[in-house]
Amino acid sequence: MPEVYVHAVKGRTLEQKKALIKDITDAVVRNFAAPIDAVTVTIVEADPATKAKGGVLFSERAPR
Amino acid sequence: MPEVYVHAVKGRTLEQKKALIKDITDAVVRNFAAPIDAVTVTIVEADPATKAKGGVLFSERAPR
Amino acid sequence: MPEVYVHAVKGRTLEQKKALIKDITDAVVRNFAAPIDAVTVTIVEADPATKAKGGVLFSERAPR
Amino acid sequence: MPEVYVHAVKGRTLEQKKALIKDITDAVVRNFAAPIDAVTVTIVEADPATKAKGGVLFSERAPR
Amino acid sequence: MPEVYVHAVKGRTLEQKKALIKDITDAVVRNFAAPIDAVTVTIVEADPATKAKGGVLFSERAPR
Amino acid sequence: MPEVYVHAVKGRTLEQKKALIKDITDAVVRNFAAPIDAVTVTIVEADPATKAKGGVLFSERAPR
Repeated sequence: MPEVYVHAVKGRTLEQKKALIKDITDAVVRNFAAPIDAVTVTIVEADPATKAKGGVLFSERAPR
Repeated sequence: MPEVYVHAVKGRTLEQKKALIKDITDAVVRNFAAPIDAVTVTIVEADPATKAKGGVLFSERAPR
Repeated sequence: MPEVYVHAVKGRTLEQKKALIKDITDAVVRNFAAPIDAVTVTIVEADPATKAKGGVLFSERAPR
Repeated sequence: MPEVYVHAVKGRTLEQKKALIKDITDAVVRNFAAPIDAVTVTIVEADPATKAKGGVLFSERAPR
Repeated sequence: MPEVYVHAVKGRTLEQKKALIKDITDAVVRNFAAPIDAVTVTIVEADPATKAKGGVLFSERAPR
Repeated sequence: MPEVYVHAVKGRTLEQKKALIKDITDAVVRNFAAPIDAVTVTIVEADPATKAKGGVLFSERAPR
C-alpha cells in the first residue's frame, strides 16, 4: 500500500518501464511517506488492437 | 477522461472489439458531454483459464 | 461478464449516469452477444481533488 | 456482482489458480450472501518484467 | 502482492467486510504460497445509483 | 493515455495528493515520451475500514 497501476499500450522498452516504475515508487515514498517495500507498481499493457482514444484504436493511429 | 475498461474473456474478433469501442465512445460523448478525444476505452482481455463465474473457469464452461 | 468500469469525475446527474449505463449495456449485448443479465456497469466517481489531467487537478481546472 | 480481481505475477499453476478462484468465490457467497452465479473472479496476471515491489521488478528479484 | 479488489455495492456491515477480507487473505496465502503481509485486499464500494446489472441500477432493483 | 491509478487509504492532505500527482505525471512524460495532456492520474481513496494488509483492516492497525 499504496498500489499503483499504469494502463498503457505495449511498445515501451524494458529500460523505459524500469525507469518509470522507479520514478513512481520514489514519488510515492517521498509524497505519501510510505515505506518503500510497501509500494507496488504494475504496468498493465494493452495490445494496441484493444485500446482506443477518441474511438480510434491505437493499432490504427498514425505513430507519433 | 472518462476512461472506460471492459473486462472480458478473450475470443471476440477485431471487428467486434472495434464496434464495441466505437459504441461505448459515442455513448460517453453523448451522455456525459465529453469531447471525443478525451475518451479512452480499453478492453482488458482475460485468458479463459484465469476467469470464472460461479466458481467455474470459462475454460471449463460449455460454450454458449 | 463482461464487466465495465467508467472512471469519471463526480458531477453528472443521475439521469446522465442512468442513460450512460443503459447505452453501454446495450452496446455490450449487441456487439459481444452477451446475455443482458451478465453485463455489469459501474461508474467509479472520483472527487475532483483526486484526479488530474496534464498534471492539473479537475478541482483546479476551469469548467468547460 | 460482486466482481473480484486478483493482481498477481504470472507463474502459478492452473491448479493453484482454480483453487484460489474456488475459495474466493465461496468466501463471497458465505460472507456477502451473494448467489454463486453472480460472483465473478478474474486473475489479472502480470509479466514479472512489468511489476515491482519496493522499486525492484519481480523479474529481477531472487525467487522466494 | 497479490493485491485483491472486490467491487460491490455498499450495504454490507463492517463485520461482513472484515470476515470477507480475512477469508480472501487466507485463500491467497494458502493457494498462492504468499506471505500474509504481502497480501492486500480492498473492497471498492459503489453507490447503488452508480452500478447496474442487466442495465438496471442497484438503487432501482427490488432488494433480494 | 497512459492512465495511472493509485490505490491508497484516505488520510493524505490535498497538498500531498497534488504533489504526488504532479510527480507521477512528470515521470510518465519523461520516461514514456507521452504528451502531458494525455496523462491522467487518479487517486482511488479507500476508507480504512474497507482495506487490509495481512488480513488486518487499516482502521484497526496502529498508526505508523
